[in-house]
Amino acid sequence: MRTIEWQDGTVVTVDQTKLPLETVTLKIRTVDAMAEAIKNLRVRGAPLLGACAAFGLALAACNSRASCVSEMLAELEDAAAILKSTRPTAVNLFWAADRVMDKARDFFGDVEGLKALVFGEAQKIADEDAEANRVMGENGAALINDCDVVLTHCNAGELATVEYGTALGVIRAAWKQGKKIRVIATETRPLLQGARLTAYELKRDGIPVTLITDNMVGYVMSKGLVDKVVVGADRIVQDGVANKIGTFTVAVLAHEHGVPFYVAAPKSTFDLTRKSTDIIIEQRKPEEVTHYGGKQVAAEVEVLNPAFDVTPLKYVSAIIHENGVYYPQDFAKFKSNSPV
Amino acid sequence: MRTIEWQDGTVVTVDQTKLPLETVTLKIRTVDAMAEAIKNLRVRGAPLLGACAAFGLALAACNSRASCVSEMLAELEDAAAILKSTRPTAVNLFWAADRVMDKARDFFGDVEGLKALVFGEAQKIADEDAEANRVMGENGAALINDCDVVLTHCNAGELATVEYGTALGVIRAAWKQGKKIRVIATETRPLLQGARLTAYELKRDGIPVTLITDNMVGYVMSKGLVDKVVVGADRIVQDGVANKIGTFTVAVLAHEHGVPFYVAAPKSTFDLTRKSTDIIIEQRKPEEVTHYGGKQVAAEVEVLNPAFDVTPLKYVSAIIHENGVYYPQDFAKFKSNSPV
Repeated sequence: MRTIEWQDGTVVTVDQTKLPLETVTLKIRTVDAMAEAIKNLRVRGAPLLGACAAFGLALAACNSRASCVSEMLAELEDAAAILKSTRPTAVNLFWAADRVMDKARDFFGDVEGLKALVFGEAQKIADEDAEANRVMGENGAALINDCDVVLTHCNAGELATVEYGTALGVIRAAWKQGKKIRVIATETRPLLQGARLTAYELKRDGIPVTLITDNMVGYVMSKGLVDKVVVGADRIVQDGVANKIGTFTVAVLAHEHGVPFYVAAPKSTFDLTRKSTDIIIEQRKPEEVTHYGGKQVAAEVEVLNPAFDVTPLKYVSAIIHENGVYYPQDFAKFKSNSPV
Repeated sequence: MRTIEWQDGTVVTVDQTKLPLETVTLKIRTVDAMAEAIKNLRVRGAPLLGACAAFGLALAACNSRASCVSEMLAELEDAAAILKSTRPTAVNLFWAADRVMDKARDFFGDVEGLKALVFGEAQKIADEDAEANRVMGENGAALINDCDVVLTHCNAGELATVEYGTALGVIRAAWKQGKKIRVIATETRPLLQGARLTAYELKRDGIPVTLITDNMVGYVMSKGLVDKVVVGADRIVQDGVANKIGTFTVAVLAHEHGVPFYVAAPKSTFDLTRKSTDIIIEQRKPEEVTHYGGKQVAAEVEVLNPAFDVTPLKYVSAIIHENGVYYPQDFAKFKSNSPV
């Protein structure tokens, strides 16, 4: 099932802030509505954000009343700026917006042609993501053994992508191959994407999953309960992997316990012209930490709420992508050029 | 201010499950009520649990209608069994119950004399804890520098003890000495003792505190924001320190980043006849992880909910206690005898 689809000029997806207790369909009809959905995490996950940016531009084109191509292009530039200002860390959003806009800027023809081009490119980005995840799943499944217990953090599943998932794609592919794996999902504070989304997806698919709080990762590893870690990524740079806050903590624990730490991410997540220090880590509002369901739970004190952290490549055992698997010996190349 | 006090045959304390939003005084009049309060974490924290066990026996003695000492002693044995069956990990509870019962078993005299002895020993345990925390605070403050940022996990404060606190006692003493320290408090899932109790205590005392989720510990350490870690303990054995779940994760991260990791605990927490493998880790109900405020938040899947973990001594830089500070060279002695 696709997480995001285009239906008659509307982007149809599910409001992920309501899952798993409610399945609320979200019909997004404007760029502003798409920006709101992204900012408030109704849609989230790096690859899905790429598709959202692209479909957001398709909405701008579809809704345009421009009478000439240059006027529509100006509208698209504004829409791209709005979409790119929503969240700073996941690179896929910028990558997809830029890919569509590069095509649009080079376009020669009439307004209907430009509309068709923008929509076509958006659909292609979505289709490519779905395909990349399936191939990535196969590539990664080769690293998973029968009866492995695989720990994953946050949600890098179907809901974080157009279809199938990155880290959960690897887990799904291994399961489909008949490997009797089990998954340990971290709840992933503050917004509980692991407890709400990963646990939900895996349970639905019949893959055994055990939920833990984030601070239990050391415990389960010290008890020898974890064979592999597989996580997704929001941006892979020359020297590190930006992903959901807590990923670095899991990586250090995996390193300390000799547990392989794998990252699964499509090409669109690679940003090898940049370094860790170039990544803007989104700082979100304190209420995500201090409140639950609109109700205060913590004492009123200062809060730090970075949404991501960066794991240096020395903690990464391999990066699984749609063209294969990069190992530490390949990481050195990241600094000089893009091997992707 | 004392966290627990004896007032006219009643144990008076505060319901810690309601803090910081409500301050509900708890008046405990029976052994069963004390056992309920311990089981449901209305009172918690290893040193406080010691006082609770002792005062629980004082309640049994006070409420007794026994006509002879042997009858009252049998009632006390039953009460001790009830209190010792509440929670398995913190040793102070067993230590305090055994200390009172050893005195009671050796008693020679009448029932009023036995009542006085039991109450007197309970009060002595409470007074000694308060005093131990103050001295421990001074001993530990010597390890804290001016302008240090100190990270602490869970609540090892006034609320975890009779008065002043263990880890927070060290922080309070350093602050009182004029050291301009700042504290980073982890929220401590699933029951948020850091967000609810530590943040509350420190804010009340005017000590600057920043709240983070447990999975941000790697982030703040990687940014160089943490100078020292100070935590409490539930049981110190020959080869490790049992403390709130997540402590081991913090210890590994501190080790990886070269950040000193200190444990502050009174004598009553040392259990040097035992090893890590002897410690029973309390497994609590799944709803603590899957629900909030009675409302389900997670998908319905299997849950692991250990309340404690054990940090091997190799990750511990020093153990601060009321008689001084143990360093790694002292830890070797733990195996052969009790240096406490």
